[in-house]
Amino acid sequence: RQRFSPGAFIADKGNHRHFMAKEIHEQPEVVGRTVAHYVDLAAGRVRMPAELAVDFRKVNRIVISACGTAYYAGLVARYWFERLARLPVEIDVASEFRYREMPLFETDVALFISQSGETADTLASLRYAKAGGASILSVVNVPTSTIARESTAVLPTLAGPEIGVASTKAFTCQLAVLLALAIAAGRARGTLSERDEEGLVSALISVPGLMAEALKSEADIEGLARELSKARDVLYLGRGMAYPLALEGALKLKEISYIHAEGYAAGELKHGPIALIDETVPVIVLAPSDAVFEKTVSNMQEVAARGGRIVLVGEAHAAREAAVETMATVAMPAMNPIIAPLVYAIPAQLIAYHTALFMGKDVDQPRNLAKSVTVE
Amino acid sequence: RQRFSPGAFIADKGNHRHFMAKEIHEQPEVVGRTVAHYVDLAAGRVRMPAELAVDFRKVNRIVISACGTAYYAGLVARYWFERLARLPVEIDVASEFRYREMPLFETDVALFISQSGETADTLASLRYAKAGGASILSVVNVPTSTIARESTAVLPTLAGPEIGVASTKAFTCQLAVLLALAIAAGRARGTLSERDEEGLVSALISVPGLMAEALKSEADIEGLARELSKARDVLYLGRGMAYPLALEGALKLKEISYIHAEGYAAGELKHGPIALIDETVPVIVLAPSDAVFEKTVSNMQEVAARGGRIVLVGEAHAAREAAVETMATVAMPAMNPIIAPLVYAIPAQLIAYHTALFMGKDVDQPRNLAKSVTVE
Repeated sequence: RQRFSPGAFIADKGNHRHFMAKEIHEQPEVVGRTVAHYVDLAAGRVRMPAELAVDFRKVNRIVISACGTAYYAGLVARYWFERLARLPVEIDVASEFRYREMPLFETDVALFISQSGETADTLASLRYAKAGGASILSVVNVPTSTIARESTAVLPTLAGPEIGVASTKAFTCQLAVLLALAIAAGRARGTLSERDEEGLVSALISVPGLMAEALKSEADIEGLARELSKARDVLYLGRGMAYPLALEGALKLKEISYIHAEGYAAGELKHGPIALIDETVPVIVLAPSDAVFEKTVSNMQEVAARGGRIVLVGEAHAAREAAVETMATVAMPAMNPIIAPLVYAIPAQLIAYHTALFMGKDVDQPRNLAKSVTVE
Repeated sequence: RQRFSPGAFIADKGNHRHFMAKEIHEQPEVVGRTVAHYVDLAAGRVRMPAELAVDFRKVNRIVISACGTAYYAGLVARYWFERLARLPVEIDVASEFRYREMPLFETDVALFISQSGETADTLASLRYAKAGGASILSVVNVPTSTIARESTAVLPTLAGPEIGVASTKAFTCQLAVLLALAIAAGRARGTLSERDEEGLVSALISVPGLMAEALKSEADIEGLARELSKARDVLYLGRGMAYPLALEGALKLKEISYIHAEGYAAGELKHGPIALIDETVPVIVLAPSDAVFEKTVSNMQEVAARGGRIVLVGEAHAAREAAVETMATVAMPAMNPIIAPLVYAIPAQLIAYHTALFMGKDVDQPRNLAKSVTVE
């Protein structure tokens, strides 16, 4: 009879130097597992858990609340719910949500996102929404957590334990669940046809392969990290779904490299932050080949015209067509823009990881931060 | 017959070194004028223009779009509409709003805020909302502007010409109009009683006097500016209505001092940005004596525990009770917290102005910025 010591079940780093590196590289696998859980691969349909007893035809609004990285997953999902299911979305950080005295209605579905399922402000927001009569859904990585227990229905992410304090694989698994949910809502409401669903499911299934492609940018990003490590300040720009991803990329850099990175909607640049731009502030632009790509390029040109040094993350051919002088380009594979947030998360994470590594920071245990914030 | 040369009507700086200083100091007067326009002083009631043919009982949602400082005025107004009129509010920066394909309904009122009334993205958002069937209101400082002309009803701010590129008096006049509108909506919807209205109108009328009090903090702020001018990075924190004001305070600093200031919801600090905090990053905390004051104090204590240097803007007695060691305290008069955003705007503006002045920057014409952004 073989015996296992408890230690055998403790997460290890595999061949990686840090949990964060391991968790970044695990994403094709764990996102694949999560996608497989919410998709009927044979039929090309999304498949929600039976307990999800929400009739989306009777829902008037989705209300989302979360903190930190999970909040940014919610911001991405807002675009999906609006576009695919024509559902209005109200979203706020949980520490504001719970005190805003926001009117809630029985026709609202309230959605809470948390890796640990124990985030104090998110839990308080959940209880506020529950008292207001809304149906409660949660997207959590720990299905035995308090947030999961207090929800009407739980949509688990299958990311496995996340040890690095800066969230990576939990984020992309949250995105996978939220996109599947938005597709299900769109089908139920008749805003998506069967054929639309097939196309979207096929895009969702393509994500793990595209993530594996995106991970190949690591060598280029290591070179770039040396340059970024000299910066004290960084701006991160995006439009549309790349805007919340710019916020997330900036948060990752802040968390582990302590560089003051700030995310901005690219179109807001002219309304103030462009004053910051000079040759000492690198500007990282997330520019998937989507409907607003041309607008993003025009914002990049404004940055370049003011001496700003640009790091462009985009499809190789698009970067060439943009005809903007860059400090570096990080090449992404071609993809359906609807799933770009899942794939572009990879370079954003790798940029933060390698910059912090180059600076000699403790990437798995950054100063001042706890993995799960269970106090207000 | 007396003759005036056209020059006599050109804005001058009065006794001030810069237009920005003049415009900051004009606020008690121009906000007073704006308040008088929207309030029946004799009856203690708000008074909306006759052309505002909106029946707020039939409105299901307010949708707000704007850019830069005007967007932050909208973010403050969200708290007012929710709290006073129990109306859900959807708000986004105009450059995102116009491309989000957001569902709009005939029961929506869409509200656009712009000093110039010519902001390109805001105008494009207005046209998107108009095509979607929503009623269009605008809050503009130039009543002959394109945005005003294309609106169902215009709520003018009476700030007079604003010459400094960084908006100051236009912002507080926008807030005055928006608060009056929220009170009117609350009365129409029956969520405010006549007595509530009297109390709120009396608070609104108290603003110019409180602004004059707040301007007395200028000497203290001049001393503080010397310290802040050494910083490369600054965090600006607030909760509730002070959160958008923290965003605005950070924007002002960015625009004219080129210090990388970032605004954050104080409760989000633990979810990442707290990693930035060390003794080189001053943390400015806007802490009116409102329902979330204790929570803000607890966030300040977290900052102090990590060696952060705090600048506390709050009522003098509250600052004493907070018992947190600060680098400086900027004393505000006691007030009804509902009007705190209008009064706390003054120290935020003065901090940016004096810091930039100390650094020798061109405060009226900051680099890279235009007064009115009429391109996308």
